[in-house]
Formats: sequence, C-alpha cells, structure tokens
Amino acid sequence: MTYSAIRSAQVAFLAFSSLGGIFLGTSGLAAECDAVSESEHFLPVNADTVHWGYFSQDLEPELVINSGDVVTVETLTHHANDDASLMVTGDPGAESVYAWTSDAKGVDRRGAGSTDPEVYENGSGQGFGVHILTGPIYICGAEPGDVVEVEILDVALRPSGNPEYPDRTFGSNAAAWWGFHYNDLIEEPAGREVITIYELDATGATDYATALYNFTWTPQTDPFGVVHETIDYPGVPVDPDTVEENYDILEGVRVPVRPHFGVIGLAPAEADIVDSVPPSYFGGNIDNWRIGAGATMYYPVAVEGGLLSMGDPHAAQGDSELAGTAIETSLTGVIRVTVHKQADLAGTILEGLYYPLLETDTEYVVHGFSYANYLEELGDTAQQDIYSNSSVDLAMRDAFRKMRHFLMTTQGLSEDEAITLMSVAADFGITQVVDGNWGVHGIMLKEILAESPEATATAPVEVAENAEEMGDR
Amino acid sequence: MTYSAIRSAQVAFLAFSSLGGIFLGTSGLAAECDAVSESEHFLPVNADTVHWGYFSQDLEPELVINSGDVVTVETLTHHANDDASLMVTGDPGAESVYAWTSDAKGVDRRGAGSTDPEVYENGSGQGFGVHILTGPIYICGAEPGDVVEVEILDVALRPSGNPEYPDRTFGSNAAAWWGFHYNDLIEEPAGREVITIYELDATGATDYATALYNFTWTPQTDPFGVVHETIDYPGVPVDPDTVEENYDILEGVRVPVRPHFGVIGLAPAEADIVDSVPPSYFGGNIDNWRIGAGATMYYPVAVEGGLLSMGDPHAAQGDSELAGTAIETSLTGVIRVTVHKQADLAGTILEGLYYPLLETDTEYVVHGFSYANYLEELGDTAQQDIYSNSSVDLAMRDAFRKMRHFLMTTQGLSEDEAITLMSVAADFGITQVVDGNWGVHGIMLKEILAESPEATATAPVEVAENAEEMGDR
Repeated sequence: MTYSAIRSAQVAFLAFSSLGGIFLGTSGLAAECDAVSESEHFLPVNADTVHWGYFSQDLEPELVINSGDVVTVETLTHHANDDASLMVTGDPGAESVYAWTSDAKGVDRRGAGSTDPEVYENGSGQGFGVHILTGPIYICGAEPGDVVEVEILDVALRPSGNPEYPDRTFGSNAAAWWGFHYNDLIEEPAGREVITIYELDATGATDYATALYNFTWTPQTDPFGVVHETIDYPGVPVDPDTVEENYDILEGVRVPVRPHFGVIGLAPAEADIVDSVPPSYFGGNIDNWRIGAGATMYYPVAVEGGLLSMGDPHAAQGDSELAGTAIETSLTGVIRVTVHKQADLAGTILEGLYYPLLETDTEYVVHGFSYANYLEELGDTAQQDIYSNSSVDLAMRDAFRKMRHFLMTTQGLSEDEAITLMSVAADFGITQVVDGNWGVHGIMLKEILAESPEATATAPVEVAENAEEMGDR
Repeated sequence: MTYSAIRSAQVAFLAFSSLGGIFLGTSGLAAECDAVSESEHFLPVNADTVHWGYFSQDLEPELVINSGDVVTVETLTHHANDDASLMVTGDPGAESVYAWTSDAKGVDRRGAGSTDPEVYENGSGQGFGVHILTGPIYICGAEPGDVVEVEILDVALRPSGNPEYPDRTFGSNAAAWWGFHYNDLIEEPAGREVITIYELDATGATDYATALYNFTWTPQTDPFGVVHETIDYPGVPVDPDTVEENYDILEGVRVPVRPHFGVIGLAPAEADIVDSVPPSYFGGNIDNWRIGAGATMYYPVAVEGGLLSMGDPHAAQGDSELAGTAIETSLTGVIRVTVHKQADLAGTILEGLYYPLLETDTEYVVHGFSYANYLEELGDTAQQDIYSNSSVDLAMRDAFRKMRHFLMTTQGLSEDEAITLMSVAADFGITQVVDGNWGVHGIMLKEILAESPEATATAPVEVAENAEEMGDR
C-alpha cells in the first residue's frame, strides 16, 4: 500500500474510530468478538489509543479483531518533541499525545514506574520505559501457548503536519546516556548527549535520509517545572532557544531508509506492568531493522487475546543501534494478524516456539537476548537488574540455543547436524546493545534448508518428502 | 580467473617455481628486489612453501615481489587429513605437506609452541596454531608504517587429487572443543567432537555444498605413536577404521559456497613466532567470509617486506564460526599486492590505519577484536592469556572505536557525526567467537558516504568537494 492509499484508509476509517468507547474492557470480550464483523480495521494514534512506555496485561483493548484481520496502525515516535515544530505541530494525533501544559499531560503515565508524585522524580511512570505504543489489540481466539503471526504488509512514513513542510518527514536520533558509546567519547565535552534531526521525503520519491542539524542536549525544564539534565523522561519538549543548532553536518551523507517498527509485542504474563525497553520472549523492543514491510513476525502468546501493541517507529537503524536510538520517525503500518493455535503448531516452523521469530521471503531470523525471559530469570527485581546484567556474550549464547532449537525442532535435524550447519551457514549479528536486555540475532537463509519455498507456518514442513523430491545430489 | 585458467597458470609457472632456492633469506633482499622482473608469479603449496601454525618475522621469504604484482597462491586446508582419501591422496602438494611416517613429517613444526620433544606433548610446535600458511611473500618496498593492499582477484576450489573423484572438491567442518557450543550440548554424549565432511563441485557448476557424512572423533594415534584424545594437533591422520561414518545427514540441505581465506596476514613485530589462531592488527585469522573474490584487504605493515602469508581456506562459513571451523577446503587464490607508503596515506581511506580493513564494491568493513593488539596489550604471556580473556563485548567495543576512527579520520566527520551515523546505518556482526581473540566487524555501505564511488585508497577522498557537487539536499 502506498502512502496515499494509507492516507485514504485513514480518512475512510476515521468515522469508525471516532465512535470511541465501543471497547468495554476485558470483561465481555467474548461478546465483542462475536460482534466483530469487519476484517479490515484502522487504529489511529492519539492520546486515547496509546500507552506510553510499558506493556500490561491489564490494559483495556483499543481494538478487537479476528484472526486474519488486517489493521492499519498509526504509530508515533517518542522523540517527536526533540523538534516539535517538525514532528508535532499540525498533526492532531501527535498534538494530542504530546499535549503538556502546566496543568496536565495528554498522556500522563510514561513508563512502568510510579505514578505517585511523592515517589517519582522525572515524571509519572518515571520514564522507566519510553515508547509510545499504539494498542493493545485484542485478537479473538488467542490464548496462552498459541502463536500470533504479524505480517507487515506495508509501512509508510508519516508526513509532517506542519504546513511549512509539505511532503517532508522528520526524525530524531539521540546519542544518549544509555548508548554504547557514551562513556567512551574522545572529543570534549565528555558526557554530552547529542540529538541529530534527519529529514526524509514523505512521498518516497527518494529512499534516503539526510541530516538536517544537530544539537547538544541542555537541561530542559518541562511544563511541570521539572528540570531534565539528561534525556531521562520521554516527550520532554526541547526549547529551541536553549540549544545551539549546528547545520551543515553529515554533508553528502545519505542514510538508506529502511522503515521498521522497533517495538511490536504482546503483553507478558510475568508482571502487570512491564517497562517497554527490554525485549524478551513476547517481542517488544527488539529493534531489528529487518522488521519492516514484507517481514512476518511470530510471537508466543502469554495472555488471553495476546494484547498486541506496536510503536517505536524507525526510518533507519544499524545492527547494534550503537548510540541508543535509530532515526526515530513516526510511521503507519498495515499488518495482518493471525492466530496459530498451540495444537496446530507441530510440524510447522512454529513448533515449540518460545522466542520472537522473524520470517522474510529469504530468511528465518531467531532473536537471542542476554536473558531469554528476563522477567522470570531475574525474579522480582528483574526490571531493574536487567540493566546491569546484559552482555553480548550472553545474547550470543541465547541466539545459538534458539537457532539450534529452530533447526532441530522445525527442520528435523540432529544436534550435530544443526551445529555444523550453524557454523558454516548461519550469520549471527548484534541487534542492539542499548535496550537493557541486549540482543543477538541469528539468520538462516531459507534456500539452505530442505523445505520447499512454499512451506509456511500454516503448512507442515515436510523435510523428508521435499528432500526426496529434490533428488540425491 | 576460472579454475581452468588457474590450472594453466600452475602449469606455466611450475618450471619457474621448481627452480627453488632462489630466495636467499632476508639478507640480500635488496638485490632480490632488483632482480624481480616478472609481474606475475605463482606460489605453489608444498612442504617447502608453507609454514604451519604460526607467523614469524624470521621466516625466509618463499617469494619476492614488487608492489602491484599479481600472485597465484595455492593454499591447503589443515583439515585435509580428516579424510585423506578425499583431500590428500593423489595431490602431490598436499601429500608433501601431510607426509608423516614413523620417522619424519613433511612439515615438522605445527604451531608456535616448543619443538623440544622433552617439552611438547602433542607434537612439534604443540599445535599452538593450526593453519597451513603459504608464504611468506616479501613485498619490495614495504616498511613498517606502510599499508599493504591485497586484492583478491579470484578464488578457485582445489579439486580432489584422487582419480576416483573427478571434478569433486571436499571439505571438513570440525565441531571441536574450542567451539562456542562445546560445553552447551543437549544430546549425549557430552564432550563429543564431530567432523562433517562436505562435498562440492570443483567445476563451479553448482554453487552449494552438501554434507557427505559425519563421524564423532575417536582417539587417534599419530604415526609417531602419540594418542590424540581430542583434536589437539593439526594434521593428525584420521584412521577411517576407528570412526563410525554416518551418511544420510543434512538431507536436502544446500550450503551456499562463498569461498574465502580465513587467514591472510603480515608478520607481526611484537614476537618472533606467533600462534596463527588469534587475529590481530596484522590480519591473520580474521575468519570473515567476506574476504573472498572481489574483496580487497588492507593491512598495516609491521616488518620490512611485510611478509605476507595466507591459508585457512574456507568454502563457506557463517558469521561467528560457531562450532570452531568453517567448511575447511583447499583453495587457490589470485591476488594483487600493492604497497601504500606511509607518506601517501593522508587523505585516503588508509589514513591512520591500525587495523585490518576490508573493502568491497559496496562496503567498508572494519575488524574489531577483543584486543586490538593482544600481543602488546597482554604482555609476555599474551599468547596464552588471549584464550581466556576474550569476549564479544570487548570486540564490539573495539569495532565501535575502529568504525569511529574510520569515519572521523578518512571521512572527515566529527565524533558526533560519526556516532549518529553508526547508530542509524552501520551494521555490527559477530565475525567469530572461536579464535582466541574474538571478532566483531562493522559494515558501512559506501553509498552512504559522501565520497564519490571512484574514490579509492590511491586517490584522496575529497569529501567536501563531492558534497558540493552533489548539491544541497
């Protein structure tokens, strides 16, 4: 779907979505499911349809869909207020989410932390989790043990709403205190955080981003009067009068645009409210730039209805997301969501799936983390401890185990076969080193495997049969 | 160059190389250089032209060339004796290298360890280093501080010399005790090492390898009577009567062939004899599958003449080389070797180069290691200590620093520009976790950078000028 087609879908669905209030909470959802008659849906982004900085099994769904339905989902970057004139102004959805006066915020809670003013320092939710997540979407029929498939049919840049910038999209990259580089700077001053604003063509006429300007973060006072010495709370409006904008940066550099969603995930069962930053078995903030148009993700279901949320839209990111963020840019995605029942998984690529799996036309990609399920492995203090216990080594270990699982369970290989094949043909890359639970992904080309190209999650992988058909080579 | 063309070159040059003895050691090399009249050379592989398991600045060159010369270099895998009937028998070069009777070996020293029978247990050189390296090649004019460029013009599989297997090439993958998986096996028995023999089409008619059979390593008694409980010494002949060969493995699996050299490097200056396993600033065992035909490598020169050696040929390997080896297969390469003098490096992609740099048509790739120069950083016990001090985290740190150096020094970026660009556009992958000094590589697409596509190491990178030409985007 092109940008203009998505725009049309937005207009067409606005009447529907503006009805509001048709979702009545988790009680009575069976009745909701019976009432779902459309197979295509539109989920706009605004203060009413987002949760900011966390996943929760307790959230009321913003949309109820059937398995196989298609949803157009708007998402907003949580870095739009790095330059509100480019990324918020004139965009009603963004304006409603980012609204913040001395009296109130459009979205008060930002993060999984405390909402008690006596406890928090940075703001409600404490910024323990940063992503603006659209959803959740309740998928009728999804139960714990099932797998939810999310096909990303299309992704489009969200144009600036500011009439001064027609057909332009802007994004922000923050080289922040949580970046891998931060304590290892060679130019002065040490301890600086730098925001780089990027510019893109919203019409897709060019396929690269260019840097517009950068500035070093200075203490920012939010509308409630809290001073943010560092980037410690999402959505703090940057006052352009307080920063020095440097133009003429990265001259001639063109960053290939590879739009994708940093966060797509289901609600975890281990805790009622979970920081959106560390990825885990349920997906979340995987930050793999391959999760864009044409990709299919599979997530294990932990709670009834799955409760799918997505956000953290990116225009471009490198493997490792070194400095802490991508080109953070609002996007609209078109997804098809399908439930695969636990009883039907045997003999498919989803058999025994306990991790987020990516499938593209050419690849299977397993996602390893320092801790496969940090909420369970690190116990009651997991959401704090994960930030001080991650390593790439642990994530590589986990990615190895998951690729072994994938090859043994779904491709019918022995351990010895799986290990030699990994050594000679699987590519392991560093997904990210900045999201608390660090990531390593393992890539296996489909063409290597014995299965036929037609084999998908919905059809058993008939390894032996295909091998025979292909003959003795 | 096709396989048959390389074969012709071999025949044409054999008379030349068979003269032997024309290289008189490092004394008198100036006179040698004056006498080099050919610009194309052939360096065959045999017991006289290899050193096994180590680099050394004290080695007598096997070939003396001028900058810009082209050399056809034969290399042998050090795993050929995993199945000698497929990879040694009928191949005079391999037979001379692997010769081993109760009285003597074709190549006695294998590794950088002791050659004193009172000291070693496994054999001469102790197997502290395993690769059969062809060379070294003395490059006239190369001095410490310069950079040696190695363009890999072509790579061809070495066909089996056994007349029973016309047009076939075989390779071995060892899932060995030094593999990342080794202490993390889930099937019994624990602690097993498994050799998988792969088969390829030597004519290149197909571009994939298939598994032929595998076997679990059993204690092997070498011709000197030493029993090898594990794979602890290179070139130990496997007695097929002592192992159980399992056929019908990896049925239908096709491993894409991406032939490359695991080891290309110059002699380091820090020690007189250096284990060939850990890669470092001088190159060596980088084990990046991208170092194949069409790739160009750049290495900092540490000693006069550079002393280039190469080997560890691979038919295929994944990023991480998880189980300890690739498909280890003998190859012949055609390389062009060029010296870039230190005084000429400013303004090129080689300015300040202190690490092995890879260039392809589309990419620059920096190579990070747990220790950028482990011989210097870890002191007198470096060659032992490197094996217990590596981590992917350290290698990621080093790769970050090297990519930053590359972008700042050769592309004229500020640190802030370099860091944002890395975060949004550089891909960091895990080169290997099995070579003592673990590796992470960072990839930057050339199309991203402001330089013109024509810019190479021999021409200054005119960032500013190009940026102007490309206009204000």
